[in-house]
Amino acid sequence: MSDVALVMGSISDWGTMEQTASVLSELGVSYTKQIISAHRMPDEMFAFSKEAQANGYRAIIAGAGGAAHLPGMIAANTVLPVIGVPIQSKALSGLDSLLSIVQMPGGVPVATVAIGKAGAVNAGILATQICGLQVPAYQVALQQYQARMHAKAVASNADFD
Amino acid sequence: MSDVALVMGSISDWGTMEQTASVLSELGVSYTKQIISAHRMPDEMFAFSKEAQANGYRAIIAGAGGAAHLPGMIAANTVLPVIGVPIQSKALSGLDSLLSIVQMPGGVPVATVAIGKAGAVNAGILATQICGLQVPAYQVALQQYQARMHAKAVASNADFD
Amino acid sequence: MSDVALVMGSISDWGTMEQTASVLSELGVSYTKQIISAHRMPDEMFAFSKEAQANGYRAIIAGAGGAAHLPGMIAANTVLPVIGVPIQSKALSGLDSLLSIVQMPGGVPVATVAIGKAGAVNAGILATQICGLQVPAYQVALQQYQARMHAKAVASNADFD
Amino acid sequence: MSDVALVMGSISDWGTMEQTASVLSELGVSYTKQIISAHRMPDEMFAFSKEAQANGYRAIIAGAGGAAHLPGMIAANTVLPVIGVPIQSKALSGLDSLLSIVQMPGGVPVATVAIGKAGAVNAGILATQICGLQVPAYQVALQQYQARMHAKAVASNADFD
Amino acid sequence: MSDVALVMGSISDWGTMEQTASVLSELGVSYTKQIISAHRMPDEMFAFSKEAQANGYRAIIAGAGGAAHLPGMIAANTVLPVIGVPIQSKALSGLDSLLSIVQMPGGVPVATVAIGKAGAVNAGILATQICGLQVPAYQVALQQYQARMHAKAVASNADFD
Amino acid sequence: MSDVALVMGSISDWGTMEQTASVLSELGVSYTKQIISAHRMPDEMFAFSKEAQANGYRAIIAGAGGAAHLPGMIAANTVLPVIGVPIQSKALSGLDSLLSIVQMPGGVPVATVAIGKAGAVNAGILATQICGLQVPAYQVALQQYQARMHAKAVASNADFD
Amino acid sequence: MSDVALVMGSISDWGTMEQTASVLSELGVSYTKQIISAHRMPDEMFAFSKEAQANGYRAIIAGAGGAAHLPGMIAANTVLPVIGVPIQSKALSGLDSLLSIVQMPGGVPVATVAIGKAGAVNAGILATQICGLQVPAYQVALQQYQARMHAKAVASNADFD
Amino acid sequence: MSDVALVMGSISDWGTMEQTASVLSELGVSYTKQIISAHRMPDEMFAFSKEAQANGYRAIIAGAGGAAHLPGMIAANTVLPVIGVPIQSKALSGLDSLLSIVQMPGGVPVATVAIGKAGAVNAGILATQICGLQVPAYQVALQQYQARMHAKAVASNADFD
Repeated sequence: MSDVALVMGSISDWGTMEQTASVLSELGVSYTKQIISAHRMPDEMFAFSKEAQANGYRAIIAGAGGAAHLPGMIAANTVLPVIGVPIQSKALSGLDSLLSIVQMPGGVPVATVAIGKAGAVNAGILATQICGLQVPAYQVALQQYQARMHAKAVASNADFD
Repeated sequence: MSDVALVMGSISDWGTMEQTASVLSELGVSYTKQIISAHRMPDEMFAFSKEAQANGYRAIIAGAGGAAHLPGMIAANTVLPVIGVPIQSKALSGLDSLLSIVQMPGGVPVATVAIGKAGAVNAGILATQICGLQVPAYQVALQQYQARMHAKAVASNADFD
Repeated sequence: MSDVALVMGSISDWGTMEQTASVLSELGVSYTKQIISAHRMPDEMFAFSKEAQANGYRAIIAGAGGAAHLPGMIAANTVLPVIGVPIQSKALSGLDSLLSIVQMPGGVPVATVAIGKAGAVNAGILATQICGLQVPAYQVALQQYQARMHAKAVASNADFD
Repeated sequence: MSDVALVMGSISDWGTMEQTASVLSELGVSYTKQIISAHRMPDEMFAFSKEAQANGYRAIIAGAGGAAHLPGMIAANTVLPVIGVPIQSKALSGLDSLLSIVQMPGGVPVATVAIGKAGAVNAGILATQICGLQVPAYQVALQQYQARMHAKAVASNADFD
Repeated sequence: MSDVALVMGSISDWGTMEQTASVLSELGVSYTKQIISAHRMPDEMFAFSKEAQANGYRAIIAGAGGAAHLPGMIAANTVLPVIGVPIQSKALSGLDSLLSIVQMPGGVPVATVAIGKAGAVNAGILATQICGLQVPAYQVALQQYQARMHAKAVASNADFD
Repeated sequence: MSDVALVMGSISDWGTMEQTASVLSELGVSYTKQIISAHRMPDEMFAFSKEAQANGYRAIIAGAGGAAHLPGMIAANTVLPVIGVPIQSKALSGLDSLLSIVQMPGGVPVATVAIGKAGAVNAGILATQICGLQVPAYQVALQQYQARMHAKAVASNADFD
Repeated sequence: MSDVALVMGSISDWGTMEQTASVLSELGVSYTKQIISAHRMPDEMFAFSKEAQANGYRAIIAGAGGAAHLPGMIAANTVLPVIGVPIQSKALSGLDSLLSIVQMPGGVPVATVAIGKAGAVNAGILATQICGLQVPAYQVALQQYQARMHAKAVASNADFD
Repeated sequence: MSDVALVMGSISDWGTMEQTASVLSELGVSYTKQIISAHRMPDEMFAFSKEAQANGYRAIIAGAGGAAHLPGMIAANTVLPVIGVPIQSKALSGLDSLLSIVQMPGGVPVATVAIGKAGAVNAGILATQICGLQVPAYQVALQQYQARMHAKAVASNADFD
C-alpha cells in the first residue's frame, strides 16, 4: 500500500507533476502515479476515487489544467484529503485551472496549491505533512527538508554576481 | 419523452435557471427539470448523463456556479449536446463559473452561454435552435420570437423619458 | 449541401480553425469553409447568415479574435445554432475574444467553446453532436471518437518517462 | 441635419446615455437619439450606419453593454468617426463591454471612452471636439466648459467637512 | 489538546470563519479559536506556529484577507498542514486574498480553499479529513455528512416553486 | 501645418507607433512625430498640448504604456480630440496601459483604441476620419482603404493551405 | 510649514482621504489638504508640485481614482517622495486606479498603497515613517501606534460572539 | 552604516533587483544587499526587521514574487519605511506579487512600486528621495538624474528610424 496517489489528467501534465513525484521520493513517501482523465476516463476516475480509501492511500494529489475537474470530482467521491495542482494553461496561464480547482462549493474541499511547478512541489510536501501526522519519520524528513531549504537560502548570499 | 433536460447544481440556481424554463415554455419546447449536484450527487449525475440519450433528450442544459463541474462532467458521459450556464457567483461574479465551464479540454465540448440570467435565456433558445433542426415548428417559433424581440426593440424608442 | 459552415474572420485564424476542419473530417461530417470578416466584409456576412438555413446547413461555426463580433452577428441573422471559437489574441491571450463572444444579450445565443485550439476541436465535436441528432451515423462516430480518446488516455500511462 | 447621432442597444442603456445627451445639449450640439440593437435590429443598424454620412452626421456615439457589438458594426459600415461607450454590465461590471468595444481589429476603429456615466459624458465632449473642428462656436463652448470645470474644482476646496 | 487550531487575522473575519467553527462542531472535531494578526501580532504568530506541533494540533486553519500573509507565515514555521481561507475583501472581492494565500513558493505549502463562506466550511471539512486519518470516528462523521448533503440535495427537488 | 500630431512617451514605443505613421502616409494625411514623455518631459508636454490648437493640428495621437498618462494629460490642456494608443506592456500585456488611458474622469475624454499594433493602425484611421470631416479627399481615401481591406479579405479565401 | 501635503483629485475622494487626515492628526504630523485635479486643474497641479519642496513639505500624499494621473504627474515634477492612494472606483473597484498609479515607468516612482480606506490610512503612516527619519517624536508616535494596534488585536479575542 | 537595506526573497530575484542596486550606486546612496526569504528564513527576517532601525538604515527595499510576504512582514516589525518590489512571476506575470504586496491592511504600509525592472529602478529612486530629506546631496543627485532623463528623452527624437 502506498501513502499517496498521484494522478493527473493528461500525460502532458507530467512535466509539472514530476516535481511532486520527485519531492515525495526525496522525503521517503511512497506513491503510485497514473493518468486519470476526468473527461476521457470518467468511469475509471469514479472507481479510483471510491476505492482510494480502501486501497490504503492517505492522500490524493491531482493535477489538472483548464476546466480542471479532476480534483473536485475525486473529492466528491471520497473522504480522503484531496490536493489539487493547477497546471499552467496555454491561453490563461493557469488562472482558469486555479479557479476551477479552488472555488469548490461548501461541503467538498480541494486543498489547492500554487499554479505550476511550485504548486506541484508543494502538493508533495503538503501530502507528506498530512501523512506525517501518522508517520513520525515523515515529520522528521520535513524538518530536515526545511533545514536544507534554510541553509540553501542562506548560502545563496554567496551567489550575487 | 421531453426535448430538453434542464439540470442545475443547487436549488439556489433556480432563480437564474427559471429563465431557461420560461423561454422553453414560451417556445413550446418540452423539458424536464431537476437538481443534480456534481459534487453532492455524483452517482445520480453519471446515471443521468449516461441515460440521457436513451431517454430521448435532444439537448441538456446545465447551470452551475463557482467550480462549475456539472456541465463538463455530463458532457464526458454523453454524445448529446450539452449547454452550460455559468451562474453569477458571490465573490467572483461568475468569472470562475464561466472559466470552469468553457475551458474544456479538446474532445469534450460544453456549449457555453453568458453569465447569469441572459445566459439562462440563451441556453433555452440555443436548445430550441438545436431541437429545431428536427422540429420545424420550433424554427417557426424562433422566427416569431426574433420578430417579437425586433418589434419590442423598435417600439422601445417610445420609452425615452 | 454541407452539414456545417465553417467561417472565420481572417486567414490568420486558420492556424486555429484547421483543428475544427480536421475533426469534422475525422467524424465524417461535411463542411464548407470561408473567410467572412464581420468588419471588412459586413455585407457578405449578412448575406451568408440570412441564407445559411436555406442553404441547408445544420450548424455554423465561427472563429474570431479580439473584439470578436462575427459569431454574434451571424447569430442575430439566423435561427441555426451558431458556435463561437475565441481565437487566442496577442495582448490579452483571448480573454477579450472569449468575453466578446460569450457575453451575448438575452435572445441571441452563441454556443461558446474554449479559447484556441482545444476550442476549435470542440466546436467541431459540438457541431457533430448537433448534426448527430438527425444523422445516427454521426452519433456512432462520436461514440467511436470517445472510445479512441479513452483508449489513448489509458494507454498514455505507458508514456511516463 | 444634426451633428451627432446618439444610438444605444437597449432602452435600459438610457440611464447611462442620457449623460451624453445632457452634455451635448449643454454644449449646444445638435443630436438625434434612437435605440438600435445590433442583435435585435441588425438590418436597421446596417441601414443607419450606411446612411449616416449622407444624413449629415459628423460623428456617431454608440452605447452598448456585454458583448457590445453595436459600435464596431456601425464602424464597419461608415467612414464617420464612431465613439463607443461601454455600459456597466451586471456580472462583469463593464469589463466585457470595454474589451468588446475597444479591441477592434486593424482597419476599423472605435473611439472608446470610460465605462459607464463618466464615459457617457466624455463621449459627448469628444463628439463636440470633433464637430468643433468645423464649428468654432463649439470650440468656444468647450473652452467655457473647461473653465467651468476648473472653477468648480477649485471651489470644491470649500466643501471639506 | 484540540485537533484543530482555528486562527484569523481580525475579529472582522469571524463572520466568515464561524462557518469553520460550526462545521467542526457538527463533525465532532475539537478546536481552539483565536485572533492572531500577522501584521499586528507578529511575535504571537511566530510563537503560535512554532509551538503548534508540540501543542498537539493536527492541523491549522487560518483565515485572512487582502495581502493575506497569515497562513503562509504560519506554514513557514511548522510542519503541520496549514489550511488557508481567503476572506472576501472589499475592493477586489477576495481575488487578492486568494492569490496572496495560494501562490506560495516551492517548499512551503498552504492548502487553499474557496473565497469566503464556502471556503470556510471546506476548511473545516478538509481539517476533519486530515484528522480522520488518525481518528476513524471522524471519517464516519464525514461519510454521514456526505450522506446528509446528498439527501438534502436530492430532497431539494421538491423546492421548485 | 500638419493635420495630425503623433506623439509617444518613449522611443521604444516607435515599434508600435510606426504603424500609425504608415497608415497616415497611406491615406495622404500629413503629420509630425515626436517623443514627449509625460513623466520625463512634463513641461514640453504642457507646452505642446496648449499650443496644439494654434499650431493647426486637427487631432493628436498619443501612444503610451504602463501608467500611461500622456494621452490624458494632453487632453487636459486642449480642446482638440486626443486619441490614445495603449502600448503592450511587459508584465501586464497592456491591460495597465488600456485602463490608464480609457478610464478618464467625466469632462476630459481620450478616444482609446486597441492595445498594440492594431490600435496604432486604428488611431491613424480614426484621425483620418476626424480630419475627413473637413477634407473630403480623406473620406475618399478612407472609402478606398475600406475597399482594399474588403478585397484583400475576400481574396484571402484563396490562401487556405 | 507643514510636514505633509495631502491632495486629492476630487472632493468625492474625501470620504476615503479623511482617513489619511485622521491618522496624521493622531500621530501629530502636520499637513495641509486641498483639491488638485490633474485633469481639471493641470496648471495648479504643476505649480503645486514644482513648489512643494520649497514649501517645506517632506512628503506628498495624492489620492485619485480611475485613470488616476495625479500622483504620477506630481512625481514627475518633484524630488520629494510621493505616495499614491488608489480610490475605489465604481465599475472596476479600484483596479484601474491601482494600475494607473503603481505601474509608473522607471525613473519616476510613486509609493503606492492599498485600494481605498486601508490604503488611505497607510498613506498617512508611511508619510509619518518618512518624516520620522528627521523627527524622532514621530517614530515614537509610530511605535505607540503599533503598540495600540497590537493591544487592540489581542483584546479583540474577547469579542467572539 | 548604510542608508538603505536591499533584501530579496531569492537569488533568482537578483536579475530584477540589481536594477535597484545600480540606481542607488548611480545616485551615491549606500546600501547593503542580502537574501532573506520570508518563508525559508523567517527568524532571520524577523531579526533583520527588528534591528533595522538600530542598524541605522533609513529605508528598506524588499523584492519578492508570487505570494510575496517579505515586504509586508518586514513592515510589521519596524517603523522604517519599507518599499516593496513585485517580481514578475511565471504564471501570473506579477499580478499575484503586486496584490500580495500592495493590499496591506490599515496600519502597516508597504510603499509599492511597479512590477519588475521598472519597479526595481523606482524603488531605488524612492529610497533616495526618502534619504534625501536628510541628505541634501541626494536631492541634488536626484535633480541631476531627472535632468539626465529629460535630456535623454529629448535626444531620443533623433532615433526615429
